[in-house]
Amino acid sequence: MAVQKPSIPKGTRDFGPAEMAGRNYIFDTVRSVFRKYGYAPIETPSMENLSTLLGKYGEEGDKLLFKILNSGDAFAKVDWEKVRTEEGINSNALALQVCEKGLRYDLTVPFARYVVQHRNELVFPFKRYQIQPVWRADRPQKGRYREFYQCDVDVIGSRSQLYELELIQIVDDVFAALGVRIVLKINNRKVLSGLAEVCGHPDKLIDITVAIDKIDKIGLDAVKAELLERGLEQKAIDLIEPVLTLQGTNEEKIAAMRPILANSEIGMRGLDELEELFGYVTAAGFHQEIEIDLSLARGLNYYTGAIFEVKAKDFQIGSICGGGRYDDLTGIFGLPDTSGVGISFGADRIYDVLSGLNLFPEGAVRGTNILFANMDAAGVRYALPIMQELRQAGLAVELYPEATKLKKQFDYAEKKGIRYLVIAGETEVQNQVLNFKDLSTGKQDVIERNNLEQILKTVAEN
Amino acid sequence: MAVQKPSIPKGTRDFGPAEMAGRNYIFDTVRSVFRKYGYAPIETPSMENLSTLLGKYGEEGDKLLFKILNSGDAFAKVDWEKVRTEEGINSNALALQVCEKGLRYDLTVPFARYVVQHRNELVFPFKRYQIQPVWRADRPQKGRYREFYQCDVDVIGSRSQLYELELIQIVDDVFAALGVRIVLKINNRKVLSGLAEVCGHPDKLIDITVAIDKIDKIGLDAVKAELLERGLEQKAIDLIEPVLTLQGTNEEKIAAMRPILANSEIGMRGLDELEELFGYVTAAGFHQEIEIDLSLARGLNYYTGAIFEVKAKDFQIGSICGGGRYDDLTGIFGLPDTSGVGISFGADRIYDVLSGLNLFPEGAVRGTNILFANMDAAGVRYALPIMQELRQAGLAVELYPEATKLKKQFDYAEKKGIRYLVIAGETEVQNQVLNFKDLSTGKQDVIERNNLEQILKTVAEN
Repeated sequence: MAVQKPSIPKGTRDFGPAEMAGRNYIFDTVRSVFRKYGYAPIETPSMENLSTLLGKYGEEGDKLLFKILNSGDAFAKVDWEKVRTEEGINSNALALQVCEKGLRYDLTVPFARYVVQHRNELVFPFKRYQIQPVWRADRPQKGRYREFYQCDVDVIGSRSQLYELELIQIVDDVFAALGVRIVLKINNRKVLSGLAEVCGHPDKLIDITVAIDKIDKIGLDAVKAELLERGLEQKAIDLIEPVLTLQGTNEEKIAAMRPILANSEIGMRGLDELEELFGYVTAAGFHQEIEIDLSLARGLNYYTGAIFEVKAKDFQIGSICGGGRYDDLTGIFGLPDTSGVGISFGADRIYDVLSGLNLFPEGAVRGTNILFANMDAAGVRYALPIMQELRQAGLAVELYPEATKLKKQFDYAEKKGIRYLVIAGETEVQNQVLNFKDLSTGKQDVIERNNLEQILKTVAEN
Repeated sequence: MAVQKPSIPKGTRDFGPAEMAGRNYIFDTVRSVFRKYGYAPIETPSMENLSTLLGKYGEEGDKLLFKILNSGDAFAKVDWEKVRTEEGINSNALALQVCEKGLRYDLTVPFARYVVQHRNELVFPFKRYQIQPVWRADRPQKGRYREFYQCDVDVIGSRSQLYELELIQIVDDVFAALGVRIVLKINNRKVLSGLAEVCGHPDKLIDITVAIDKIDKIGLDAVKAELLERGLEQKAIDLIEPVLTLQGTNEEKIAAMRPILANSEIGMRGLDELEELFGYVTAAGFHQEIEIDLSLARGLNYYTGAIFEVKAKDFQIGSICGGGRYDDLTGIFGLPDTSGVGISFGADRIYDVLSGLNLFPEGAVRGTNILFANMDAAGVRYALPIMQELRQAGLAVELYPEATKLKKQFDYAEKKGIRYLVIAGETEVQNQVLNFKDLSTGKQDVIERNNLEQILKTVAEN
């Protein structure tokens, strides 16, 4: 067979040992926090039936689904009459005749499908996390991939805001554990609905939010101009203006909003929810910055209560975590009126933050602790049980595979970032000792074969 | 939108919290062993270019590849002349015009592609493990899925049998850690080649092996009859017979084979390799059963030296782990003469063994340690910081989301298998204590708010 130049599909990535170490450090950290709050893992298949996925992500989303060709004689049963047009073949219509499955686009729709399908086995409120890749046929560009991991944590089956609190605590714990300083921004969809209502434009909720959202970038006057352009009267804009310039503590912001939203029932409910939530946060304690941001509107079509977003304080990048409450995720699959709340951690961006701020702990990316040099057959036989003892004590230990030049063996250790090297040759075997080198300092010790604790201690301390 | 009955594609599975706990226990165990031997994780994309996959798994394998429809207007550029036949459309030809990518079929070919593509960044011998799902469009049946995890560990770039030893040690450590008693069977492809050679039928290597492989099932006479049927002369069969009834220790088996293979250079080299490997195993120590099995022939087209297979001793199931040495995995991608050796752990079967023998440790599948009952708002405010202290100490702690009937809250704990329940109502707040119940025994303690160590101690001990 001809030699092939190896390559991977555009928008996909290989992860080597160093990247994997960093990614596993992130996943292990979030997993251990999720566990402490009683969230359990699930996994769903990479492929879902296309009927499960189609129509859930808007028209644009449908186009970004990766479809899987039916196996076997996929084109045998095509009804060609249905796919022919004057211009030729309708790709989309034909695709739907030959593809029944697609790769999952996110973890939310599969989660909703899972909850409904397994509702009789689950204990509600059902608390789950899910860390799996998703696929989108987006145009690849810097920082945007066609395969990437999502890391979602959700609870479904309760309206209690104690779960909003729990997710806020999880955010606090995760970023504390990772050493990342953050701002957690909170909003409530009901407050935004109330604002649109008191403006006399409940239908212009999205116009208002899109404009408000730009205040940091374009400034107050430009936002007001945009609101005018989007069809709001001056009177409505005057009403919104104080919201745009809201200052003070979170309690002060809520208090300042009350007179503005006084005539909107839903708006006042939103403020009550915010107040209740901040009461919980105060009781439980939150160690980072947390602020109400009324311009926050992510996933607006979807969220019905609290909305969250997390930004890193010391690194310029989009939001690294976000989520909110949704009241009818599972309705489409036959389980209506089931409220839930969830957040999603952006693993790729968190990786970039940790990497950019040099926050990966050294141990997280280190592999092998000790390389045993290969001196000769007798040395190998002497070393093998010693290496086993060190491994049993938890160390990562390798033996160089051939009794080649020491220079080459040292090179291997250096390139792999292995700090310690043990030489066990003729002299060492005779004296029942090991020659233990710290390659980072050049320091070298002779250690009794029966005193391996000394090695364990040295490695643990460094 | 109409309500959809939720379902998943045939041959795929959802994994709920209990299954995930069991699976993670297995993966965490193998990962921690791999690490101790200096193997580092990599991940490759789920999709590979079809050109990378096609032709690597035989004609049958090509049919089992899941192909991904090109995104965008997939059928716009089809050359219809090339796909039309007298009977209609050639599905396979058309598929190759509209699909450029496929889901990976195993981890071996992507690994070979990875090694060649990244050869300038890697340190050789390159030691990696990889735990990811693979996809095959096989007919689904009991125990056979269209998506399943593989768990491969390989080293590439050295001919040293110290790596065969390392993999044998990894097998020993993994199954010791899992508590599974095993038999590790070892063979060498060169010995089988030698056997065919001395029979005068180097071309009948596969016929001979297939027949030998059946000895346990059909007995000696039937195997001899089959060899005759497959074209071996009586003389050749007489030569093979002692191999079929080989008894004794591994050393004795090697010694008994030497006169039989004396005239085959490759056969003698195979015996030398086996002898060398058993020498290493003796020096390092192996704690389970390990035996030469000359009928072992898995992946014969592929392996060039050692062949491994692991069976569970106390549970009827196929092999739970297997592998061997290959001498030219990367040649097709442009890196010839690169020898490697690897094994693959069968996660699904290992799960079945642990589950069947009841070997999952209780802690592995337990989720939340303590449920705090929700008594009232004051009780919640009192409980929140206490729960944080317990989480910081490593416990998994939940708060019931609503101040509903205690019966309902107890039910939730019971259904989720939560052993301990804390009540913190009016009395407890007043006295700055917690009412701590062990739901498995009914035992109940009043614990001082400032003496949470007592809770930690009780949970840790049980």
